[in-house]
Amino acid sequence: MPIIEMHMIEGRTVEQKQRVAAAVTAAVAESLDCSPETVRILITEHREHEFYVAGLSKPQRASLQEQGQ
Amino acid sequence: MPIIEMHMIEGRTVEQKQRVAAAVTAAVAESLDCSPETVRILITEHREHEFYVAGLSKPQRASLQEQGQ
Amino acid sequence: MPIIEMHMIEGRTVEQKQRVAAAVTAAVAESLDCSPETVRILITEHREHEFYVAGLSKPQRASLQEQGQ
Amino acid sequence: MPIIEMHMIEGRTVEQKQRVAAAVTAAVAESLDCSPETVRILITEHREHEFYVAGLSKPQRASLQEQGQ
Amino acid sequence: MPIIEMHMIEGRTVEQKQRVAAAVTAAVAESLDCSPETVRILITEHREHEFYVAGLSKPQRASLQEQGQ
Amino acid sequence: MPIIEMHMIEGRTVEQKQRVAAAVTAAVAESLDCSPETVRILITEHREHEFYVAGLSKPQRASLQEQGQ
Repeated sequence: MPIIEMHMIEGRTVEQKQRVAAAVTAAVAESLDCSPETVRILITEHREHEFYVAGLSKPQRASLQEQGQ
Repeated sequence: MPIIEMHMIEGRTVEQKQRVAAAVTAAVAESLDCSPETVRILITEHREHEFYVAGLSKPQRASLQEQGQ
Repeated sequence: MPIIEMHMIEGRTVEQKQRVAAAVTAAVAESLDCSPETVRILITEHREHEFYVAGLSKPQRASLQEQGQ
Repeated sequence: MPIIEMHMIEGRTVEQKQRVAAAVTAAVAESLDCSPETVRILITEHREHEFYVAGLSKPQRASLQEQGQ
Repeated sequence: MPIIEMHMIEGRTVEQKQRVAAAVTAAVAESLDCSPETVRILITEHREHEFYVAGLSKPQRASLQEQGQ
Repeated sequence: MPIIEMHMIEGRTVEQKQRVAAAVTAAVAESLDCSPETVRILITEHREHEFYVAGLSKPQRASLQEQGQ
């Protein structure tokens, strides 16, 4: 009964989310040898200023790059 | 000091959320014999295309059923 | 299709976990008017030094209190 | 930069976890058109009495079935 | 490779989120002696009626206090 | 009332966890201008084969490097 939470930056279309959910469900069911019916997926979208790598959001990194760092 | 995260599809009213938070807090406090003051609840709502069972969202399942599958 | 994650400090018995899962499922199903079959609960236990309030774990607070602070 | 949390009942081998992580990473990278390098996966295993459907754990459901219910 | 999820009530400015992400990244990298590049932070904002302490949201507690309770 | 979940690979000492919890609590309280008392931190440790970057765990990457890739 796997439960999968996916966090991603907002901006994907409904079609992309449906595609990734279908693909991940198939990957999990096959790899763990369980029924797709038991797989649940939750997607949480985060705005650009809610996702940080090395303490910087995507717009912050882009801005630094433009300035030649 | 239980912390509870609730994920649900969007569409519940504020009153429903207040009711479920009060009911779950009481259930946890009584079952675990702890003070309600120590119970924290976080609700995250997901849009219909952010919640998948067997790789399909609710609108996708409804659409399949309409088509007689 | 609510999914509920419960975080608590380790030490509860299997019976306590079964009781809190049953009570929370009933509370959610009644408050949100959904079938208990759709409710999934995940419990994650954390050791005492994995749970902090105000930057202190339970043993750290107990130790401070013993010292008369 | 997708981050994926997978919750499952304990009991899978290291090989199964490596296989599901590789398969899910490929599925996400292809579906969302992003580099596999940006995909992070966290697996959390839950013991049998930490995972409930309809308020019952797997051993509880098995026990009910044995009793002819 | 620490991954940090921060849940907070909505209302903070982009600047506040950037500041807390930078400060937490620095605190984690220094305390755990790892590169800031390996630290990822996800912020999830919750509306006022999605965050409960003792079964009450912030507006509910404010309303109770006004009534002299 | 920020709630912070920290995911990390197992192996840190109790002292390291206490230090990172204290440092993160201070960083959050100062950056968001809230009382440390309102900050809760949950640490979840993951074993080496429960944490994947680009579909590979740390031991898998080490093994690839030894083989000259």
